Amino acid sequence: MNDAESIRRADGDDAGVIARLLHDFNREYGEPTPEPDALAARIRLLLDGGDTAVLLAGEPPCAVAVLRFRLAIWSPGRECYLAELYVTPARRGRGIGRAVMERAVALAREEGADTMDLGTGEDDTVARALYESLGFDNRESRPDGPVNYCYEREL
Amino acid sequence: MNDAESIRRADGDDAGVIARLLHDFNREYGEPTPEPDALAARIRLLLDGGDTAVLLAGEPPCAVAVLRFRLAIWSPGRECYLAELYVTPARRGRGIGRAVMERAVALAREEGADTMDLGTGEDDTVARALYESLGFDNRESRPDGPVNYCYEREL
Repeated sequence: MNDAESIRRADGDDAGVIARLLHDFNREYGEPTPEPDALAARIRLLLDGGDTAVLLAGEPPCAVAVLRFRLAIWSPGRECYLAELYVTPARRGRGIGRAVMERAVALAREEGADTMDLGTGEDDTVARALYESLGFDNRESRPDGPVNYCYEREL
Repeated sequence: MNDAESIRRADGDDAGVIARLLHDFNREYGEPTPEPDALAARIRLLLDGGDTAVLLAGEPPCAVAVLRFRLAIWSPGRECYLAELYVTPARRGRGIGRAVMERAVALAREEGADTMDLGTGEDDTVARALYESLGFDNRESRPDGPVNYCYEREL
C-alpha cells in the first residue's frame, strides 16, 4: 500500500499520532508547541467538538492535514479552513502532500463547505506551488488583482 | 452620544440592521451578496450558534464588525477571526473604524481568545494602516520576515 492509498480520516484514537506530527511540525519550523501529551488531549477535544477533521497518510502516519469548519456568512454552506498541513521530512517529494490536499478538498466538499482557505508565507514556495496548482488563489477579483494578506496579533 | 460611545454588542434583534450593513458592504465592493432578508436569517442563525459576535456602532448603526470564534489548536484558549469590518461611506474618517476595532480586540480577549486574525487586500491601505497601528502583523517571525498570504478557492 503506498502512502496516497492509505490516506484516511482520523478519529479520537489517533490523537496521539496527530499530536506527535504537529509537535514535530512546529519544532521543525522553530515555532512554540505544547508537549505531545498535552497536544493530544487538545486534538481529542477538537475532534470531539465536531468542527475539526484530520486526515492522516501513511502507515505509520507520515503526513497530516487539519481542517476546521464553520457556517459561512455569505452562503448557506460551510467554510473550511486548512489549519495545518505537514509531511515528515523523510517522506517529502513523493506527492504525499498533493494527495492529502486532494483528499482534503474532497472532504471539505463532502462536509458541505463551498469555500476553502489557508494562510502561507511568501517564501514557502513548494507549498504555494501546490496550493496554486489545486486552484487556490491569493489575489482579489482577478488573476492580476491585489494580493490578500493574513494579519494576526496576540491578545 | 457620539458613534464611538454607542458601540454595542448586537443580539438577534439586530439581525436586520447587521444584514443591511453587510449587504451594502458587498454591494459597494462589487461582491455578490444575498438579499438583506436572507442575510438577516443567516446572521440570526450565526448569532444563535454561539461562535459569532457582532459589534454595531452609531444610532442608527453606521458600522459593523463580525467576529468568529473557535477553540485554538496550539493553546488552551480560543482564536478570533475578524470576518467583516465596515463603516458606511458617509461616516468614514471620524475614527469609528478604529473605535470598533479597539472594542473588537477587547471583546476577543473577554471571550478567551489569545490570537486574532484577519485577511485584507494589499491595496486596502487605510484598513491595513489601521490594523498595523493596532498591532496586527502580516509577517512571519520578525518585522522584516516573509509576508503571509491568504489563499482561497471555491469548492
